[in-house]
Amino acid sequence: DFKAKDKIVIGVVGGDGIGPFITAEAQRVLEFLLSEDIKKGRIVLKVIDGLTIENRAACGKAIPDDVLAELKTCDVILKGPTTTPREGDPWPNIESANVAMRRELDLFANVRPVSVPEKGIDWTFYRENTEGAYAIGSKGIHVNDDLAIDFTVTTQEGSDRIIKAAFDYARKSGKNKVTVVTKANVIKTTDGKFLDAAKAIAKNYPEVEMDDWYIDIMTAKLVDEKRRSQFKVLVLPNLYGDILTDEAAEFQGGVGTAGSANIGKQYAMFEAIHGSAPRMVTEGRGQYADPCSIIRAAGMLLEHIGYQEKAEMLQKALDICGLYEKKLVLTGRDTGATGSEYADYVMETLSHP
Amino acid sequence: DFKAKDKIVIGVVGGDGIGPFITAEAQRVLEFLLSEDIKKGRIVLKVIDGLTIENRAACGKAIPDDVLAELKTCDVILKGPTTTPREGDPWPNIESANVAMRRELDLFANVRPVSVPEKGIDWTFYRENTEGAYAIGSKGIHVNDDLAIDFTVTTQEGSDRIIKAAFDYARKSGKNKVTVVTKANVIKTTDGKFLDAAKAIAKNYPEVEMDDWYIDIMTAKLVDEKRRSQFKVLVLPNLYGDILTDEAAEFQGGVGTAGSANIGKQYAMFEAIHGSAPRMVTEGRGQYADPCSIIRAAGMLLEHIGYQEKAEMLQKALDICGLYEKKLVLTGRDTGATGSEYADYVMETLSHP
Ligand SMILES: CC(C)[C@H](C(=O)O)[C@@H](O)C(=O)O
Ligand SMILES: CC(C)[C@H](C(=O)O)[C@@H](O)C(=O)O
Repeated sequence: DFKAKDKIVIGVVGGDGIGPFITAEAQRVLEFLLSEDIKKGRIVLKVIDGLTIENRAACGKAIPDDVLAELKTCDVILKGPTTTPREGDPWPNIESANVAMRRELDLFANVRPVSVPEKGIDWTFYRENTEGAYAIGSKGIHVNDDLAIDFTVTTQEGSDRIIKAAFDYARKSGKNKVTVVTKANVIKTTDGKFLDAAKAIAKNYPEVEMDDWYIDIMTAKLVDEKRRSQFKVLVLPNLYGDILTDEAAEFQGGVGTAGSANIGKQYAMFEAIHGSAPRMVTEGRGQYADPCSIIRAAGMLLEHIGYQEKAEMLQKALDICGLYEKKLVLTGRDTGATGSEYADYVMETLSHP
Repeated sequence: DFKAKDKIVIGVVGGDGIGPFITAEAQRVLEFLLSEDIKKGRIVLKVIDGLTIENRAACGKAIPDDVLAELKTCDVILKGPTTTPREGDPWPNIESANVAMRRELDLFANVRPVSVPEKGIDWTFYRENTEGAYAIGSKGIHVNDDLAIDFTVTTQEGSDRIIKAAFDYARKSGKNKVTVVTKANVIKTTDGKFLDAAKAIAKNYPEVEMDDWYIDIMTAKLVDEKRRSQFKVLVLPNLYGDILTDEAAEFQGGVGTAGSANIGKQYAMFEAIHGSAPRMVTEGRGQYADPCSIIRAAGMLLEHIGYQEKAEMLQKALDICGLYEKKLVLTGRDTGATGSEYADYVMETLSHP
């Protein structure tokens, strides 16, 4: 429990591309909101450099050892997007830093809220974050020139803990409904295990209704304006969570608008769900990158470490700025305002609520 | 080449639930359109019973041996939906009959067109249909009570042939654009192989533009009304094809409106992409099931066996009936018309174009 803690260390990881630009803005907002407790030494913001693609390429690791050691000295982490090397890039084919961090810090619950009140959308996704199709990283097998094999891994414990987290939240929030999404009609062994686990756990939550759908038809159901508001809390194996949350975020304004909480027993990490947009930086437009998503992630971080009230203030300020943005007056994307100006505007709104 | 053939055998497989109801209607439409060539003996419609869940359960096989032998005497197959057993069902946990048929008859290309002219949507999906996450069927491993493993299998040949089919179509149709969808940033070995194969093949089609996206963001891009019309021909590994085509069909009116062609070197099978809706039958409403999707599939079959003109006539008739349907005058779903009445209406429209 964070409330009882004398000191909370928040790691701030810039990442690649636009990451350092937008993360700096989110950091300013955190400093603004937490200034008193920072002065008192209860909150320590620790900037962790070095999770750059150049460093990762140099040591051939998704997370350099010294960075990982530093991350482990933090209680919670705010992380900017990192670049995942792909073919044709100048870097070796190392694993995604996100994916590695989730696994190394055992951040098993990836919680992604998507809310569009005017459309009746209020979804909270609980994405399993350490196993499934992501379990083995890049350790698939090229058996020979013709044949490649990857593995999907599902464990009982790994399934149980994310499903319980989803049911706990469904009960606590009074939403009382959990939708389990798998492809258990085809991926019978692993997804079947996940679905079985959900059915077993549901029995301990008589007040929570459970239903289940396959991922293919779920992507259609989210589009269906008349019926999608029936979904409240969704729990999914890693890959389906990855897929469905991007689609869901689109109804809210795109992946640029969604924050993502990666929560484990010991650590928690909060990030934007969009990419590092390296081209914006090479074209000299890094300062125009939209910090909205990572500031939202900072809000989730505040809530997680027990600053409920400040988290709510920030949420409200972001909603106001979001409205403002829709009027195309001030936004990184549409009017040429910088990320800094946007953060200033958020802080101004926080000062005069 | 079908044009040169003296005799073409069309297998008609009813399947389960509403399958036999709607398949019978599609068969009537085929008989109507092909009546002359049926009389001449050039076309033989062969009804294949026995692909029912009861029979499959009795022999514990996704496709009973005698049914498979009969299927192999056909050139093309029109197939109604089949029920895939799931936990809690009274049947053993046998594999999906669709999935098994695609593999047994080596129907490697699952072609799914989605077209909504008024929304600028004209997508043709080329879904790899025999490998990927579907390759091993239900043969995953329960290592112990805690640990379950599934396998994803990608071969060079399996990738090449579907990617070539997509590029060939893009060129032939003049659409000249192929979008490759993978999750190669995470599923590096198998999806990486698929993406590499696409890049290599693209070099042989200089007039066809290729781009590639990850499946997560693709589900968002299909929602984006301003930009989705940029997509023309899409090629995807099995699971992503499964997922994205359900979402795509939703913009056209739901999975009930889309037909699906499963094409191999020797055989081809055409089906509705919706399920068998067994409840409609147990509730005595089987005759009200909407045959629209399987009649569309019959149209794809006609085109495949060289009856281009008749396929176009049927397409036009379906478009007219579709409009009629929107006026809520005659539709299985909205006004209580039966599937038979709908098929009658399609044939009437065909007679008075
Ligand atoms: C960047 C990528 C590795 C990552 C994922 O696949 O999990 C991203 O899409 C996400 O959803 O956080
Ligand atoms: C019924 C199911 C096994 C099948 C699939 O997963 O391929 C269906 O969703 C489809 O798209 O044809």
